[in-house]
Order: sequence, then structure tokens, then C-alpha cells
Amino acid sequence: MSQENNIGVAVVFSGPSGVGKSTVCRHLTSLLPGFHFSVSCTTRAPRPGEVDGREYYFLSREEFLTRQAAGEFLEYAEVHGNYYGTLRQELEPRVLAGEDVVLDIDVQGARLTRQALAGKPDLAAALLLVFLAPPSMAELERRLRGRKTETEDAIQRRLANAAREMTAWREYDYVIVNDEALVAAEKLAAIVRAAHCRCALMRKEPWNNA
Amino acid sequence: MSQENNIGVAVVFSGPSGVGKSTVCRHLTSLLPGFHFSVSCTTRAPRPGEVDGREYYFLSREEFLTRQAAGEFLEYAEVHGNYYGTLRQELEPRVLAGEDVVLDIDVQGARLTRQALAGKPDLAAALLLVFLAPPSMAELERRLRGRKTETEDAIQRRLANAAREMTAWREYDYVIVNDEALVAAEKLAAIVRAAHCRCALMRKEPWNNA
Repeated sequence: MSQENNIGVAVVFSGPSGVGKSTVCRHLTSLLPGFHFSVSCTTRAPRPGEVDGREYYFLSREEFLTRQAAGEFLEYAEVHGNYYGTLRQELEPRVLAGEDVVLDIDVQGARLTRQALAGKPDLAAALLLVFLAPPSMAELERRLRGRKTETEDAIQRRLANAAREMTAWREYDYVIVNDEALVAAEKLAAIVRAAHCRCALMRKEPWNNA
Repeated sequence: MSQENNIGVAVVFSGPSGVGKSTVCRHLTSLLPGFHFSVSCTTRAPRPGEVDGREYYFLSREEFLTRQAAGEFLEYAEVHGNYYGTLRQELEPRVLAGEDVVLDIDVQGARLTRQALAGKPDLAAALLLVFLAPPSMAELERRLRGRKTETEDAIQRRLANAAREMTAWREYDYVIVNDEALVAAEKLAAIVRAAHCRCALMRKEPWNNA
């Protein structure tokens, strides 16, 4: 089955802060190499060590708004006075060329992405909404406290936000409980491998019809 | 994630005669133990070595038609004067109890099964239509001839039937090309593992909300 006959998979991967998304993504990369991890745009200033095009594309407010007005964003949001968004360019041409893409975005971003792709059947079929959940709220709190980098206020804010995001789980196609990061990554890999067999992502029959 | 919170998966597994379904199912059993392989009913006479309840449930024509009239069959068909069918009992209570079931049925049976479950949202969500295809028609012919048990007429009939069935591939959710039986079984196992993470098959949130 050659890649050009198939549309890729666009995984929207959400989950509350502290649930372990980046560890799961790291394992996913070793289980299924070749994924493109979408890079978001932001208007916030780079922090020490952050590289433009790696952590984020760092845009001025003016450039962000110009590109937003031109319809270049798949989804975007304003958070604490800064803009964050995903360029269509990060996802659409890649997926249509058969590449698999992961987007690490929140529940609201997932909703906006689904809406943005609703009118494009190929891309809508490629979209898999996957929610990574903690085994329990108590365990999420333990993981957040384990970071030892956050104030009590920040922890409480993250927990409240997590509780709110978790009520949206039924809007997702899949939920993975992150008991153990490698097991969770294997489930995510199975979701992607299964999607590669979906007829909806095949432009023609997958056998040799010559 | 305890099983009773989840609805099982009902895999309708179709593919032309000679494509290698039984070998793939044998590998699936070792990759994912615990599957129930649905046993069909038939009105044809048992062949030497066939055991009632293992290869088929052997029913008299009268019993078959009585149970059909009572709505006990999920799907059935008459082939060369004999009836064949799948009892709802083989699938519905098991899947609702969280068990995974495989049905080896043809394209027409797959269509009838989907129609029969269309009015039952839980079971409709559990249904995965998977088509196993040969790498090419030439390879299918090679496999059929390799059996050395069939007449030229039977081979030609099977090939014509295969070509017809294969045109229906877009009615399926998934297509797996059986280049190599173990690889095909791994793809089928991924489809099932992915389905176990589908929100539509979860009766409640999969984390500990206590």
C-alpha cells in the first residue's frame, strides 16, 4: 500500500496539564516513527532556550492578526492577552500527502479544528480526536505536585481546568487513560495503525489492480 | 478500565474464499485472546468430522424457518438450497456484556448485519466491518490453486465471486491486504485495540471518578 494512495492521519491529542502528554508522544515517536508534531504559533515572547519553529513559531501580534484575517489558522485562541494558533499549513498539505500529524491542543482547539475541517471530507475523515485522561483526579494532583515548579495557586487553577476539560470527553473519538505512559502510547499507536486501514482514508483500492 | 463499563467489539470479517481468513483469525487468537468466534447455523447436513456447535449449529429446515420467523437471526441467506444464518444470541448479549465477537460472513451478510443493528445504537457502535483482500487477483488465484482440492470450475466460480465481492470494499470500515497473515492479524488486532478506546463503546468515563 503506497503512501500516496492514502490520506494521512491528523491526531488531535488533548488532555489536562500534567497528564503526561509529552511522555506519551515521546514513546509514540519510537513506536511509529515519521509523525509530524505540529508546531503552533504564539505572540508571547520566547523564553530562554526556546527556538523559533521548534517550540513555537513566534509571531508579532500584527503578523498573527494579519494571517488570522487571511484565514491561515485552523484554530486560534487568545489566552491571557497572547494569541496561540495552528496554521492550516502545518496540517492540511501534509495529511493530504499521506503524512501523519499530531496536534497538541486543548478541548476548545479540538472543537474549532473539527469545525474548520467539517467542510473538507478528506481532512474530516483524517481527523482523530484523542483525549488523554489521568487514572483519577487524585493521581493528576499527585503528578502536578511532583513537578515542584508551580505555586499552590497554579496547581489549583490547573486542577479546576482539568476537571472542566475532562467533562468534554464524549466530544472525542477516543479516550486513553494514562496509567503507564508506554501502554498509553501503544494504545495511541494502535489507533493510528487502525486508521491506516480505514477505507475513508484510501483514495483507491489498496490491492494491486493492475 | 473494567470490562463491564465497556461494550465489546463485533468484528464482521469478510473476504473472498482463499484469501486466508482462517489463518489470520488463528493469529488473532494468539495476539488477542478472549475473542468469541461466532458459530453460524446451517440446514445442510454435517460433513464427516464436523461437530454441532463447533463448525456450525446444524438445524433442520423447519427449526431454521421457525427461528427465522421469530426474529432470532441477525442475518441469514439461502445458498444452493440450504439456509445459513447468524443468531442474534451469538452476538448481542455477548457484546453488550463487553465480550469481543468475530463473525466470518460474506458481503451480503455484512450488509444485513449492519441493517439489523442500525436501530440499536450500542450495538451499531460496536460493529466494525473489516474486509480482508488479497494482494492481487493473480495472488488469490495462486492461493486457490494451491489448495489442490477444487475443480477448475470451482476455482473459476470462486474467482468471479471474489471479483464481485471486492467491488464492495467501500461498504466496509476497514480493508486489510493479506500480504502476510501475521502482519494482517496485527492490523486486525490494532483495529480492535483502537476500538476499545472509543468513547462510543464506554458506558461511563474510563477513569476513577470516585
